[in-house]
Amino acid sequence: MSKKAFQDYYPDDVSHCYGCGRLNEHGLRIKSYWDGEVTITKFIPRPYHTASPGYVYGGLIASLIDCHSTGTAAAAAYRAEGRSMDTKPPFRYVTASLKVDYLKPTPMGVPLEVKGKVKEIKGRKVIVEATVTAEGKVCAKGEVVAVQMPEHMKPRVGVHKIEFTPNE
Amino acid sequence: MSKKAFQDYYPDDVSHCYGCGRLNEHGLRIKSYWDGEVTITKFIPRPYHTASPGYVYGGLIASLIDCHSTGTAAAAAYRAEGRSMDTKPPFRYVTASLKVDYLKPTPMGVPLEVKGKVKEIKGRKVIVEATVTAEGKVCAKGEVVAVQMPEHMKPRVGVHKIEFTPNE
Repeated sequence: MSKKAFQDYYPDDVSHCYGCGRLNEHGLRIKSYWDGEVTITKFIPRPYHTASPGYVYGGLIASLIDCHSTGTAAAAAYRAEGRSMDTKPPFRYVTASLKVDYLKPTPMGVPLEVKGKVKEIKGRKVIVEATVTAEGKVCAKGEVVAVQMPEHMKPRVGVHKIEFTPNE
Repeated sequence: MSKKAFQDYYPDDVSHCYGCGRLNEHGLRIKSYWDGEVTITKFIPRPYHTASPGYVYGGLIASLIDCHSTGTAAAAAYRAEGRSMDTKPPFRYVTASLKVDYLKPTPMGVPLEVKGKVKEIKGRKVIVEATVTAEGKVCAKGEVVAVQMPEHMKPRVGVHKIEFTPNE
């Protein structure tokens, strides 16, 4: 797909998300698109994204559902207002709650397809249902309650000293 | 802490988890321990684990809760049988469902403390409640339904060709 993804429309100062920020060079860079009335992203887990060997790590699946759903929330909010994603003011959602049911082990080495469906839009909140499919089988399903990013979560670079510290 | 973590007792063939496997050199290597009747892990997010700048990525928080809870489930199962984690047969749990409520933005640059509490042990299932604390404040809470790893999820290396494929 060559068209711009939802995440490509996020303003620069909120485009550093590890899951989907185009400006996070270490991140997953999840890209979401409309596919009719649902949304879709495709992702090939990296070889180290394993649970047990041969299967995909559940935390990665949660991350895919998370970022695809907040992207879906933003896209749906623009649609609900009848305007395109390059118009202002911008919509940017964060996750209030995330629920994932792991239905079966997700195989490694194949593309995963995450689909999102808007269940509800109300005020600053959008609820998104998601499925994760591999080899034609739904391996996980999720639900995300996304809310518009609150003012106090706007970037505050420099408040904390951020340095890399190994975890051992 | 110099003593062995729960995850250090996992058998080699199920120690490749991206979140907590000691044999996954690219992973997060989460380490969990008993602290009385609750379990604890500490983790310092890497600088690129951002949501918006200054705050921790929700998918990472989900991952911490996920692996700490499955580790807690294993440790609790040994305790329930009155045996230590270096005895056989080994317990290894996977996640059936994961729920995370993000209560407030989690600050970057400080250690996160994840605590787990066993809510229920029944048959092959353990339900764990978790909290994620930063700077003394609970930023997220979660609940994980963990089940003993099913036979069909045991390693099946080589079934799929696993190569690194960039996602763009």
